[in-house]
Amino acid sequence: MRPQIVLFGDSITEQSFGLGGWGAALADTYSRKADIVNRGYDGYNTRWALFLLHQLFPLDSTRPPVAATIFFGANDAALLGRTLERLHVPVEEYKENLRKIVHHLKECSPAMLVVLITPPPIDEAGRKEYARSVYGEKAMELPERTNAEAELYAKQCIALAKEMGLCSIDLWSKMQETDGWQKKFLSDGLHLTPEGNAMVYQEVIRVFYEAWLSAGEMPYDFPHHSEIDGKNPEKAFQRQCL
Amino acid sequence: MRPQIVLFGDSITEQSFGLGGWGAALADTYSRKADIVNRGYDGYNTRWALFLLHQLFPLDSTRPPVAATIFFGANDAALLGRTLERLHVPVEEYKENLRKIVHHLKECSPAMLVVLITPPPIDEAGRKEYARSVYGEKAMELPERTNAEAELYAKQCIALAKEMGLCSIDLWSKMQETDGWQKKFLSDGLHLTPEGNAMVYQEVIRVFYEAWLSAGEMPYDFPHHSEIDGKNPEKAFQRQCL
Repeated sequence: MRPQIVLFGDSITEQSFGLGGWGAALADTYSRKADIVNRGYDGYNTRWALFLLHQLFPLDSTRPPVAATIFFGANDAALLGRTLERLHVPVEEYKENLRKIVHHLKECSPAMLVVLITPPPIDEAGRKEYARSVYGEKAMELPERTNAEAELYAKQCIALAKEMGLCSIDLWSKMQETDGWQKKFLSDGLHLTPEGNAMVYQEVIRVFYEAWLSAGEMPYDFPHHSEIDGKNPEKAFQRQCL
Repeated sequence: MRPQIVLFGDSITEQSFGLGGWGAALADTYSRKADIVNRGYDGYNTRWALFLLHQLFPLDSTRPPVAATIFFGANDAALLGRTLERLHVPVEEYKENLRKIVHHLKECSPAMLVVLITPPPIDEAGRKEYARSVYGEKAMELPERTNAEAELYAKQCIALAKEMGLCSIDLWSKMQETDGWQKKFLSDGLHLTPEGNAMVYQEVIRVFYEAWLSAGEMPYDFPHHSEIDGKNPEKAFQRQCL
């Protein structure tokens, strides 16, 4: 039966099946090969993510996922003393929480491909515009997230991936290699535009490919229609299903 | 844990997670509420679909899907004596195969919401253009599918839904209510444009809504972030998880 690839993260994962979203694009690429399971939780930080682990990834599962992306940090990096301080998790704890998540997944299945993704960069002007569009004059003048703070979390995410020998995607750095990344990749200074979604998709596909989890190499879950003899269809199904 | 909604069908279902696809749009709508599982099989007719039933919908499943769309007929209606006659299934058999599929799903779970979707109408000129673009001069002059033939299958699909008291979507009729349906809804005379995808999405959502399977009424699978106390997060998780 079809293997599962789980996308675990915050709102950037939860929204990944929107129009042009990176999750939907993965589902299309792995069509008939693997199920892409969205486990994105808007507003969640790594501290809250820990509460979900045993239910999302039961240790006694007979069919654990073959791969998972872990994509947190945008909420952990919300600043203290600002509107979203409720979400803040200190960067050292963020790193340790990520480590706990990875340990749990590896305990669930040592063979699981675990890919860490850093939070994206923050366009502070974009966040301010967004806050004004929602709250008008009541919007706080000081942004709830800064790019400098996001960098700290991104660096610890990459450092952990190196320590643990995991694949990783440094989205914080990658996006900023392109001029005009602020509007090109981010719709409100934080969430993804179609181009931002395309970048995440391409990076995930690249890492999966390098880790031998390429859709092209995976078998169809049932015979391709061209292999089915119209007069003796049972033959094709016996071959694959018995 | 999150309930499943299965989309079972042919290539129109398989492609439903492409850009603007109706499956991806459902996944986005039911985000945090239900998993949309794509079980579309390019080129499959109802005769071949029967071979998959026990693996896709095991009778001993402890968590069967809460709903399923059954969307076949476009291949069954391929004409005898034309290029795709290998896919042809007589219309009486198509109806009986659909009945067997529904019986299996209801045996799997009597409470499962089963929605029958008719094949879309066929734009024969569009099919011919498509064949020429792929096969050039070698393309057969006679189309492999006709709209008149598709109508027979659509009518039997709707008749079966009435006999069995099931929800149904008469896509064949619905699309043809709009002038210019041929190019507006169909990209190659058979598969869906973004507008065609939007129509299927809206029809499925409408039927689900009428059957009390509205995303708005379904619970989140874990607490919404606004319900989590930053200082005592465990409270919110105890309430929902115990």
